[in-house]
Amino acid sequence: MSILVVGSVAFDSIKTPFGEKEHILGGSATYFSVAASFFTEVRVVAVVGDDFGDAEEAVFHERQIDLSDLERIKGQKCFFWSGEYGFDLNVANTRDTQLNVFADFKPKLSEAARHIPYVFLGNIQPQLQTEVRQQVGAKLVAADTMNYWIESAKPELLEMLKGIDVLIINDAEARELAKEANLIRAAKRILTFGPQRLVVKRGEYGAAMFTENSYFAVPAYPLEDVFDPTGAGDTFAGGFMGYVAAADATDEATMRRAIIYGSVMASFNVEQFSCDRTRSLTHEEIHSRFKEIRAITHFDESTMPLRSMAQ
Amino acid sequence: MSILVVGSVAFDSIKTPFGEKEHILGGSATYFSVAASFFTEVRVVAVVGDDFGDAEEAVFHERQIDLSDLERIKGQKCFFWSGEYGFDLNVANTRDTQLNVFADFKPKLSEAARHIPYVFLGNIQPQLQTEVRQQVGAKLVAADTMNYWIESAKPELLEMLKGIDVLIINDAEARELAKEANLIRAAKRILTFGPQRLVVKRGEYGAAMFTENSYFAVPAYPLEDVFDPTGAGDTFAGGFMGYVAAADATDEATMRRAIIYGSVMASFNVEQFSCDRTRSLTHEEIHSRFKEIRAITHFDESTMPLRSMAQ
Repeated sequence: MSILVVGSVAFDSIKTPFGEKEHILGGSATYFSVAASFFTEVRVVAVVGDDFGDAEEAVFHERQIDLSDLERIKGQKCFFWSGEYGFDLNVANTRDTQLNVFADFKPKLSEAARHIPYVFLGNIQPQLQTEVRQQVGAKLVAADTMNYWIESAKPELLEMLKGIDVLIINDAEARELAKEANLIRAAKRILTFGPQRLVVKRGEYGAAMFTENSYFAVPAYPLEDVFDPTGAGDTFAGGFMGYVAAADATDEATMRRAIIYGSVMASFNVEQFSCDRTRSLTHEEIHSRFKEIRAITHFDESTMPLRSMAQ
Repeated sequence: MSILVVGSVAFDSIKTPFGEKEHILGGSATYFSVAASFFTEVRVVAVVGDDFGDAEEAVFHERQIDLSDLERIKGQKCFFWSGEYGFDLNVANTRDTQLNVFADFKPKLSEAARHIPYVFLGNIQPQLQTEVRQQVGAKLVAADTMNYWIESAKPELLEMLKGIDVLIINDAEARELAKEANLIRAAKRILTFGPQRLVVKRGEYGAAMFTENSYFAVPAYPLEDVFDPTGAGDTFAGGFMGYVAAADATDEATMRRAIIYGSVMASFNVEQFSCDRTRSLTHEEIHSRFKEIRAITHFDESTMPLRSMAQ
């Protein structure tokens, strides 16, 4: 089954302790769709300006990502973000944000887009996420959000949450959204807001997934070189949703494997700038890292009795 | 096989957001030995003062922990620590430390103690750890340390590391010891210092284990109520070493199960003050949480092919 993603297609200027790049392809819909395209067909709803040229378009075409619903605005520029990371790669310091075409973005869905069964609402204004949700008759809708919306648009965010199946956010966002320091309690609370399933991204510590009556956690793939964490969350979501849509199933075992594919795709993404590493992956590389995560997390049952003490 | 532990038997006054207790039994050797006693026989080398009374002694006797090598000093008091935790239970703020009998602690090992095959050197002065190491002919020696020794006694610490098999420390300590922000790189570096195996405790994120050619990671048991984190690390080490000594094996599969038992014991310990929760555990409770960790980390292989794109 195919996937519809609504989000940003943007340019980023990024500085990390390991390098610096100006004006490279980024945006939530970009990272998401490149990752998901390894599993199934993806259609992008986003808006770009004149600066979205042949080189950028080629990245999507190469992955056979459908840009029919990509809106192009003449005389304006793409959303632009400039950020810097220190040695704690978990924290991005924003140097500049230019909304550009994104300032007045109203996602317009074609008739074909409205019938796509798996939908991912990237991190945009919650009210726009709700409007998109109302236009689709999807089997499964997942969404992302961020601290900015939790702080500035809480009512609209809570409204959006009522209409989705899966929320995919990070650790700090989960705690802030639930106003609860303990993640397990935070998750329980968030599940009362609407989504039946919560996926929590924990960076170098891996990922966790909660439903009312299940819990799953996996450590991250161990990386010695994290080059640029930008887009890791959207790449994770792309791998996760890509696998779910391809499997066309939402049972717990499928969702768990989807978490592993999300982790695998994210682990590749941080190895280079932009989506340079993910877009050139081979199927063998993806399968092999999935198997490695199984190997590094495996342990057997214990059959040894505990100590029986003398009376 | 039995275990020898060298460390502190102490009193703590602790305040957490959930409660407050004055002068309760604590110390690394206490937490370690109570946890390890569920797996095998344990002998404690430590020093106490007059204030170590019948009630405290009963905790050890009840778990059949051997106190033959416990030194008792008249007219002095036990090591005392007073600390407070905020809502971020990962950070303890020390209010008071009184070394008391611990100021002049020189571990004295009886002939019987020197022949115990599994040894844990709790977090004490590295030079004392080395002196104990030189007196034992153990099959396997594990040790703990802390930021204080990394900062104030680095040469002595590096000397100690040369003589041990397993180092069991937390995330921040590993990064500080290796002077390396990336944990995977930090671990590789620490393994060049002496130990063949490094176990890293990551609090609510679980634990990881490294050797030159293996890596294992497991998330923590999910807890909604972490009441008091004091002693979690030593309890983890006790469960870990207890299982290794009882199994009398050091292959990777055994070590991985030992990590799970360490996690299980630590997860119980934080549910109450002191070792009140661990000392009253049943075998069934321990086995059941082991099985739960297996269940929450399990995922199947994936047999689905990735997307084949049209040429």
